[in-house]
Amino acid sequence: MKLGVCYYPEHWPQEQWADDAARMVELGLSTVRIGEFAWSLIEPDPGRFDWAWLDRAIATLSDAGLSIIFGTPTATPPKWLIDRSPDILAWGRDGRPRRFGSRRHYCFSSPTYRRETARIVTALAERYGLHPAIIAWQTDNEFGCHDTVRSYSPAAIAAFRQWLAGRYGTIDALNEAWGTSFWSQTYRTFKDVDAPTETVTEAHPAHVMDFARFSSDQVISYNHLQADIIRHHAPNRIIVHNFMGFFTQFDHFRLSQDLDVASWDSYPIGNLNVFWFSSEEKRHWLRQGHPDLQAFHHDLYRSCGRGRMWVMEQQPGPVNWAPVNPAPAKGMVRLWTIEARAHGAELVSYFRWRQVPFAQEQMHAGLLGRDGRMDQGGIEARAAAEDLAVLGAASEGPREVALILDYDAHWAVETQPHGAGFRHDRLCFEFYSAARANGCNIDILPPDASLDGYKLAVIPSLPIWPRGLVERLAQAGCPVVIGPRTGARTNTMQLPERMAPDGLQDLIPIKIRKVETLPAGAESHGQINGQTFSAAMWREDVEADFSAHASTDDGCGIWFASKNVHYLACWPDAVLLDAVLKAAAQEAGLAPFDLPRDIRVRRDSRHLFIFNYGHEPFDAHALIRHFQVTGRVLGDAIVPPYDLSVWAKAG
Amino acid sequence: MKLGVCYYPEHWPQEQWADDAARMVELGLSTVRIGEFAWSLIEPDPGRFDWAWLDRAIATLSDAGLSIIFGTPTATPPKWLIDRSPDILAWGRDGRPRRFGSRRHYCFSSPTYRRETARIVTALAERYGLHPAIIAWQTDNEFGCHDTVRSYSPAAIAAFRQWLAGRYGTIDALNEAWGTSFWSQTYRTFKDVDAPTETVTEAHPAHVMDFARFSSDQVISYNHLQADIIRHHAPNRIIVHNFMGFFTQFDHFRLSQDLDVASWDSYPIGNLNVFWFSSEEKRHWLRQGHPDLQAFHHDLYRSCGRGRMWVMEQQPGPVNWAPVNPAPAKGMVRLWTIEARAHGAELVSYFRWRQVPFAQEQMHAGLLGRDGRMDQGGIEARAAAEDLAVLGAASEGPREVALILDYDAHWAVETQPHGAGFRHDRLCFEFYSAARANGCNIDILPPDASLDGYKLAVIPSLPIWPRGLVERLAQAGCPVVIGPRTGARTNTMQLPERMAPDGLQDLIPIKIRKVETLPAGAESHGQINGQTFSAAMWREDVEADFSAHASTDDGCGIWFASKNVHYLACWPDAVLLDAVLKAAAQEAGLAPFDLPRDIRVRRDSRHLFIFNYGHEPFDAHALIRHFQVTGRVLGDAIVPPYDLSVWAKAG
Amino acid sequence: MKLGVCYYPEHWPQEQWADDAARMVELGLSTVRIGEFAWSLIEPDPGRFDWAWLDRAIATLSDAGLSIIFGTPTATPPKWLIDRSPDILAWGRDGRPRRFGSRRHYCFSSPTYRRETARIVTALAERYGLHPAIIAWQTDNEFGCHDTVRSYSPAAIAAFRQWLAGRYGTIDALNEAWGTSFWSQTYRTFKDVDAPTETVTEAHPAHVMDFARFSSDQVISYNHLQADIIRHHAPNRIIVHNFMGFFTQFDHFRLSQDLDVASWDSYPIGNLNVFWFSSEEKRHWLRQGHPDLQAFHHDLYRSCGRGRMWVMEQQPGPVNWAPVNPAPAKGMVRLWTIEARAHGAELVSYFRWRQVPFAQEQMHAGLLGRDGRMDQGGIEARAAAEDLAVLGAASEGPREVALILDYDAHWAVETQPHGAGFRHDRLCFEFYSAARANGCNIDILPPDASLDGYKLAVIPSLPIWPRGLVERLAQAGCPVVIGPRTGARTNTMQLPERMAPDGLQDLIPIKIRKVETLPAGAESHGQINGQTFSAAMWREDVEADFSAHASTDDGCGIWFASKNVHYLACWPDAVLLDAVLKAAAQEAGLAPFDLPRDIRVRRDSRHLFIFNYGHEPFDAHALIRHFQVTGRVLGDAIVPPYDLSVWAKAG
Repeated sequence: MKLGVCYYPEHWPQEQWADDAARMVELGLSTVRIGEFAWSLIEPDPGRFDWAWLDRAIATLSDAGLSIIFGTPTATPPKWLIDRSPDILAWGRDGRPRRFGSRRHYCFSSPTYRRETARIVTALAERYGLHPAIIAWQTDNEFGCHDTVRSYSPAAIAAFRQWLAGRYGTIDALNEAWGTSFWSQTYRTFKDVDAPTETVTEAHPAHVMDFARFSSDQVISYNHLQADIIRHHAPNRIIVHNFMGFFTQFDHFRLSQDLDVASWDSYPIGNLNVFWFSSEEKRHWLRQGHPDLQAFHHDLYRSCGRGRMWVMEQQPGPVNWAPVNPAPAKGMVRLWTIEARAHGAELVSYFRWRQVPFAQEQMHAGLLGRDGRMDQGGIEARAAAEDLAVLGAASEGPREVALILDYDAHWAVETQPHGAGFRHDRLCFEFYSAARANGCNIDILPPDASLDGYKLAVIPSLPIWPRGLVERLAQAGCPVVIGPRTGARTNTMQLPERMAPDGLQDLIPIKIRKVETLPAGAESHGQINGQTFSAAMWREDVEADFSAHASTDDGCGIWFASKNVHYLACWPDAVLLDAVLKAAAQEAGLAPFDLPRDIRVRRDSRHLFIFNYGHEPFDAHALIRHFQVTGRVLGDAIVPPYDLSVWAKAG
Repeated sequence: MKLGVCYYPEHWPQEQWADDAARMVELGLSTVRIGEFAWSLIEPDPGRFDWAWLDRAIATLSDAGLSIIFGTPTATPPKWLIDRSPDILAWGRDGRPRRFGSRRHYCFSSPTYRRETARIVTALAERYGLHPAIIAWQTDNEFGCHDTVRSYSPAAIAAFRQWLAGRYGTIDALNEAWGTSFWSQTYRTFKDVDAPTETVTEAHPAHVMDFARFSSDQVISYNHLQADIIRHHAPNRIIVHNFMGFFTQFDHFRLSQDLDVASWDSYPIGNLNVFWFSSEEKRHWLRQGHPDLQAFHHDLYRSCGRGRMWVMEQQPGPVNWAPVNPAPAKGMVRLWTIEARAHGAELVSYFRWRQVPFAQEQMHAGLLGRDGRMDQGGIEARAAAEDLAVLGAASEGPREVALILDYDAHWAVETQPHGAGFRHDRLCFEFYSAARANGCNIDILPPDASLDGYKLAVIPSLPIWPRGLVERLAQAGCPVVIGPRTGARTNTMQLPERMAPDGLQDLIPIKIRKVETLPAGAESHGQINGQTFSAAMWREDVEADFSAHASTDDGCGIWFASKNVHYLACWPDAVLLDAVLKAAAQEAGLAPFDLPRDIRVRRDSRHLFIFNYGHEPFDAHALIRHFQVTGRVLGDAIVPPYDLSVWAKAG
Repeated sequence: MKLGVCYYPEHWPQEQWADDAARMVELGLSTVRIGEFAWSLIEPDPGRFDWAWLDRAIATLSDAGLSIIFGTPTATPPKWLIDRSPDILAWGRDGRPRRFGSRRHYCFSSPTYRRETARIVTALAERYGLHPAIIAWQTDNEFGCHDTVRSYSPAAIAAFRQWLAGRYGTIDALNEAWGTSFWSQTYRTFKDVDAPTETVTEAHPAHVMDFARFSSDQVISYNHLQADIIRHHAPNRIIVHNFMGFFTQFDHFRLSQDLDVASWDSYPIGNLNVFWFSSEEKRHWLRQGHPDLQAFHHDLYRSCGRGRMWVMEQQPGPVNWAPVNPAPAKGMVRLWTIEARAHGAELVSYFRWRQVPFAQEQMHAGLLGRDGRMDQGGIEARAAAEDLAVLGAASEGPREVALILDYDAHWAVETQPHGAGFRHDRLCFEFYSAARANGCNIDILPPDASLDGYKLAVIPSLPIWPRGLVERLAQAGCPVVIGPRTGARTNTMQLPERMAPDGLQDLIPIKIRKVETLPAGAESHGQINGQTFSAAMWREDVEADFSAHASTDDGCGIWFASKNVHYLACWPDAVLLDAVLKAAAQEAGLAPFDLPRDIRVRRDSRHLFIFNYGHEPFDAHALIRHFQVTGRVLGDAIVPPYDLSVWAKAG
């Protein structure tokens, strides 16, 4: 695995570039990402390009021996462009255009912006496409950041109508598919259809769902537009995009088909802060991040990239954008780096080189401080570089657990949550976390993936059951764990005629007669393996001609098993999830190992990696015995807090 | 009492209609409500009516022996109508028009929409007005649902100005009545007056109050428009509207003067969820609903309907629209049904026949499941039908407690709450609940009602004291309990010259010198009947030349009694309320009985009904002794959870 | 000190004026404020003035012997003016114009409104400028109330562009100063710059900061416009404005340069309610207000007024505008009045004379009740008048602590809080409170003030370190306590090149290498003087070649001292603050005295004032010994709750 860094030459005096480049190399970095956000400096006036500075920046970095990743600057159309074509602006749910003054202010559906995008990307790719130092192109930056996938502009509405016409053919077909006889919502032409916003009460769920899918498709086709141009002008260069954590408004699997590598921006502490974790969890992992959050995304984006995954931006110190911004504990930047390597990353690129003294992100740490002195992030990047030299080439991990995550499923739940707090991404994360706490290696796959070679399939929830999945599961032949709300809707957000779980009743012959959702504090409890579990939030009334494997004390069956297929009829807590996944893992011939809360492992074909996210040293003797390692590669059997050890694997 | 159901033939294949109708009859249902929301199917294109399907649907249902309630479809103007006349749309407080895509998107003040309403209602009433199977017409659906009474559209503002001109005659009169010398708010013409929204800080309370009254009047005149047309074309048919729970933005008493029957939509569990109840209450009655919430509305709407009350929609299982949607406990659908009968309902009509597989309400249960199999609601509806056969004809209940509720009072408090959390409807509900917990029969009356024949009058709060009420109370001659904030404002939201409680100082010679409001946690406490009560939120400093009947420990008199008139100078807690109402009830010659938290009773001239909303069986022996029953009609003296028993009354 | 009252003759029948005036005099009041808000009555139609009533009102009050303070009515432009010139309206952050119907609906940048302001102020000043009874003119009313400093109207945007052009000269200078190379935010002309609102994510901090400064400047120049006209037409009259508590959106020091006296509106209980205090504090001081809140503002505005300070509006009973509105405890109105005197007020003017029966503020108490009977406020005003007679002429307090407060600092923190909850005004208040709890006299000074004669300088936080302050501190030669986040930014919101604390490293040679912010519950703790302190919210990583005076248990230095300069590298809790300030006060030769939570003192050259904000009597013997008093002036050594005592000072 290589290390790199994100660098903005335009923020620094040109005299400093050569020194910066030399220090990067000296630190053990081999790549540098540049270019993104620089549009107004590349094209200061309409049609007038200022290539000089950029040529020089590229030459300087390249001369130092660095490989360059070039980001297209489309996330930040300049003010002159917005003023000339205000139709570029994205509009909010409030039916008003956003304004210039930050970033991502464009609407993916604006025909003007697609033309302008083609123009600037072509200009850049023509100029630098064959440059030998530029090994990769990043399209745009963090699609979807700041809730920008869904725009409610006139351009978006026009494109949505076209998209609907393409999908349904006739308006009668749409009326039929959506079910518009309800509340007189019949449409007479596609032109009748508006964006589903500012309605008096909930908009039609099929309408909302299709708008979500349309919006995702607009991101995908927008990225495709860029990828096509780059591929044409920059042959044999890697095309990559930098995704984010728990971004769910577009289909990352599908967008990635236009990429060569999937990368993501890993901000462990910022992410812990802004997602759903309890305040106890936020305090416990304040300076470490949640121990499964990074791995979850590594395993997801490695799958998006069909095996090729980078961390394009790695948090090196406090960030600036969360409500509160703690500093990582000493050791964590190195730990995160090596953990990425354990999960198959080919590159970890730190964000950013030096703390920038101005603008929105000035309080974001870099590898260097604002005054250019090495900061804690830089020190740990150097340590990681040394570790990587010891570790040598990466190898693939064994196929164990396939966990299926589906963006469409996320939108289906989001469209009609029915129970406040039900989030598909959170449910997937909790299933993932439970499997990983048992020491399993996990791949996060799209619903249409082949499952061949996996020992256990985990499907946290698939409201819309995909065609062919029963067959692919049969072909894999492995045990399956299926979560609630699966097969609950048709593709156009209707209740299936044969009742849920529609499509998988061949796998497990049950029927959901009714669903209820419950507030916090109204959980049911039950007993399993001598422990008390709770079933919360979502509870299904299951009809089956066999008895439940586990039930709540009030008699509601919540774990059903038929042959090697397990179905959970509620939102399971950690106790129940652990019991189900442990049972299924044993059935699958995996050897689950109970990891403590702060300890995680990952195995590739050559190494066992142990990561300690906790505040106390961890005695790993039992663990390394369990996994039958043959020798020490890095670290020790007593793993200090915020530290790691690596062991050579048997066989 | 009859049972019925809500049915939407347009949601189902025509082949299914006859079978559905037969199953309805078989289940014991005799009425079916149809038509509402079907505008775009009745008139698919402007001026082109498709009567065929509707004729057939009516014929099929009627042929099966069902009586039909026909709902006008005006809650859902079709898209083509909105596109032709966007001036129909309601505008929000944010000064922006709402969009098509759900329901209730019209503005009551739009002249265009009044014309279109007249056109569609006339067309329907002309065609079906004399149809023998159609026994009743429902105007529109749930006026006010989704906060739609108050629209801020240009049409509404124009109508408001006319309304003000009609009310005040001259702009000088308005200036004088409102008190516009404050903050230079003088108006020179009625055209100067805007809607009271988007102001920098609080708008003028007289302005806000008049806008609330105007908005209520618009609903009333809009309903009147429909009722007039129906009455003309459908003579001798019942005109009804389906009200909702705790909807307070229009005067239900006044609107009901244009109706023959007042009906309401009873969603016990959904309502518990969205109103002010504590989380402990929400958990305790999670699957039952609050035991007084249904009765409160039965007693309110029976009064609106001048004795005639229906439940037009009865929750039969989980609903879809609350943040969380639990299933009713087994037995509750039957219990709610019989409780409606006990409170004088002539009809309970379940919503809906079969769970619809598409659109906004697909997660709402029906009597049948999505696959047509009988669901729990259906099973209990059948049980209720059998009970009703045993019970025989209804009879009126005895006149005991008259509780006065006033919509104008609600708006007065809402306009200037002074203390966060003060709600007139909540205060009324708490007085109601305290009286009902003592076993009383209650009628909820408008402030201008005759009180003849009542044994006790309860006035939770009347900020604007109505003319003639002192005289009507005197004529009734019964004890009176009056709550805080009564007589606190003039009709134009001014402080009365003679100080509060203005208008009723002839009843009880006290003067409110000052008012203070308090945060949670700053309650005062006092002792009464050996129990500690608390006075919270609102506290009046009362001047009287006689001493308080009860005071807080810090010396603030809060219960004043003069002859048989009781005044409470605070928001009373349950202990204080119980003490006051029990004392007054004894004074009134009623025989209060301390009901446990989960047990409620209702008496008509022939029966005593006992309802158990709790999780444990209830031993009713003491209760039936107290009420001197003569024999068992339904159930037993040990009433199981979620169950009821009925007893023949002595005399 | 004199007492006065706010009076609105236009709210009352003319026949009542003479009687009101006589009762004011009888109560011991000598001034009356009138005129503000009366525009629509003074100029009922465009250009037509109705002077008659106002002439008469002035004559009546003046004839009774009252001095008049005349408020210009510009806070409430009449409806006819808005309708003629809608460009007067302020626009909200939502990009929409506010509407008429309350007050402060004008935009400070509207050229039309500046013309209209000049017209009405000129008309008034011409007519009454030389009136012998009018001793003072109040400009407008409560600038900034209801969040009205910042307007986003087209007029404001146009003025902002001019302001920027004036500040930066060329757009290149702006680009450089702001750092717009970040995110392609380069501007080509000043016309490119918009208001920093409705952006997709955070707007550029230099942009936000300059908009805050611009908005402040607009208020200042608007006030200057009025002051100039008044000074011209009303020579030798006092020009005053009534500020509010914790209003921070304009620079009160700079605006006050156009005033002769700074006054403020003191609402102890309303303010406690709406600011950041804990619910425990809000309960404990429910009817008293926070004991430091009034003093803080007295000491601030006395400095704004260069020694001359009034309380223009004093809360006399419950207010109407907080979420809940408790009544003051008996005694508090008198206590607040005398406390104002202790802090140098020349006038306390109660708001208002009689409770007004209509409009927005009808629930606001007056000295008299709505029926004209003396209310508690009136009774205590009279008692205060008697006390004042005993106290005699005021004298200056000794110069002890200079606490520096900076509006620019407030905006800097507000622009990029980095840690949720960090407020500059709150930090200043907590430093103030800690110093006052040690019995110190405090002056609150602007950052450019001379510090000559002070014994201790306290700088809670100055993110942008002012030029010359090091020199002024050196000249004062006293100990200095400096709080976190000082010297953290350049004047254009960049990180300083030499790292924080930039500008004061000559005072104390430390460097802040990194900053982190922390959520509640993640405080670090440490030990000091045998007590446990906590460092919360904001923590700096300090580099120094000397060791910290105090550190947290996890080894982070948080109190650094070099010679007599103390630096705090965190948001200190009360324990730490007390320790630091006590140590510095001792160093300064002050004699700190540990005051209990509810007890506060103030000293002028003749008296020691003791105020008891608590619920229990206070034994002041130790206290009066400490301060070496010579005799009793008012009250006793046992100070009852809500009461005070005053003692003659030694020497």
